[in-house]
Amino acid sequence: MPVVAVVLAAGFGTRFDENNPKQLVSVGDKPIVCWSIEAFECNDRVSDIIVVVNERVSNMVNMLIDEAGYTKVRAVIPGGSERVDSTRAALDLLKQAGIPDGAKILIHDSVRPFVEQQSIDGCIDGLDQFNAATVAYASTDTILLTEDLGERKVVRSVPDRTNAFRAQTPQAFRFGTITKAYELATADPDFHPTDDTRVVVDYLPNEPVAIVAGSETNLKITTQADMPIAENIARSLDPEHAKQEAKARMHAVFAEAFSQMHKH
Amino acid sequence: MPVVAVVLAAGFGTRFDENNPKQLVSVGDKPIVCWSIEAFECNDRVSDIIVVVNERVSNMVNMLIDEAGYTKVRAVIPGGSERVDSTRAALDLLKQAGIPDGAKILIHDSVRPFVEQQSIDGCIDGLDQFNAATVAYASTDTILLTEDLGERKVVRSVPDRTNAFRAQTPQAFRFGTITKAYELATADPDFHPTDDTRVVVDYLPNEPVAIVAGSETNLKITTQADMPIAENIARSLDPEHAKQEAKARMHAVFAEAFSQMHKH
Repeated sequence: MPVVAVVLAAGFGTRFDENNPKQLVSVGDKPIVCWSIEAFECNDRVSDIIVVVNERVSNMVNMLIDEAGYTKVRAVIPGGSERVDSTRAALDLLKQAGIPDGAKILIHDSVRPFVEQQSIDGCIDGLDQFNAATVAYASTDTILLTEDLGERKVVRSVPDRTNAFRAQTPQAFRFGTITKAYELATADPDFHPTDDTRVVVDYLPNEPVAIVAGSETNLKITTQADMPIAENIARSLDPEHAKQEAKARMHAVFAEAFSQMHKH
Repeated sequence: MPVVAVVLAAGFGTRFDENNPKQLVSVGDKPIVCWSIEAFECNDRVSDIIVVVNERVSNMVNMLIDEAGYTKVRAVIPGGSERVDSTRAALDLLKQAGIPDGAKILIHDSVRPFVEQQSIDGCIDGLDQFNAATVAYASTDTILLTEDLGERKVVRSVPDRTNAFRAQTPQAFRFGTITKAYELATADPDFHPTDDTRVVVDYLPNEPVAIVAGSETNLKITTQADMPIAENIARSLDPEHAKQEAKARMHAVFAEAFSQMHKH
């Protein structure tokens, strides 16, 4: 049964930098979109990759894929103005290709370059038990649900922290399940979700969506402020560097405690 | 009317490192607890600071405060085993000191060293309109509310992203409001909140809690994995360094685009 990764790289990232599409910006000397494609390229259980682009980045993404020589990328296709239009474009292509309803589809934001292999595996495994699964990370912050009071937001409720997760990607679905949800959603004029999981939750409410463990490092690069954090994660993924950092921190702590002791 | 900052530094940070209390670890060559105290020390509208500690860090925190010569720290008091016990200890002290019900109390986690001045000011201003206000940050990730299905978590609902915030600190209250909420909570045997705002939301449901704009950099240092991120934020707070970083990034982007152009 095919396991298809859909890498969404059609965003314009206006919150990042209108003149530099963020999916092409390099982190740790590698374009962000390449990090994301490689996460699936190097997972043995992923059989095929589809990359969805916009016309601005299309040429560059094709160049990068050719140079890197990724073997699983089957198509680089144009997306739409909204995220869901890009997902729909990929689903339409897969339908035309005659992919079976049981195929496992992993939809990933290209601007989450540091997705971990265990999260990808968790999605693939999760679809053996459920028709939908999403990578999510338990928030270390308490989540506040708000409502408008005049021109201000005020707290409406505070969900129990153990049941509040931050959705990440990939979000994984049996092909038949996600296409059915999108058919129903498309028929709804008020349909504006920002998230594929939400399409299933809203339009197939009886379909349980399993949570797959994500990670703090699987961050979504949204603004320039995320770049130093991303660079640091890229560096910390180099195990040699990580060891050195931990050592340096411990030395600093001991040196400080020592100097404190001797000052008094 | 007094504006009192309560800096909670009584945590044992077992998720961080049992042998190194995280509030004492240095980030950007400054102990985390000092970053947090200084955020309020250097805000002209804050009149008094109370620091809540545990017996393990008490001596070191007192030493650091003496050396730094913070002028607004009125007391360093022992907290309790739970976060709420530490808040209660500070509220009891303030009651004994005969502080008026109208006083503005800002409760802050010491392990959020990078709280911005505009967030502190936003809390103080928010209390002119509301009796409770909390710093929170709109999640860039979609929030998933979950429930248990067998041994798995599954998605129960997906709140609208514009109404899902991540609570940060400070959390600010008129003294009379937070003490009233704690009195009611203390009478409830099932009372185990992890968050002061939740005490007000749960026990004074008719009291609106205003949202004050937080920031991505106002992160809570929880595990060792947060340290490289924190070090990077500390560095980026040095404006000269930040400028250089942005410049270097842009150069990298252009150099890459240029080399791509010439390869084809």
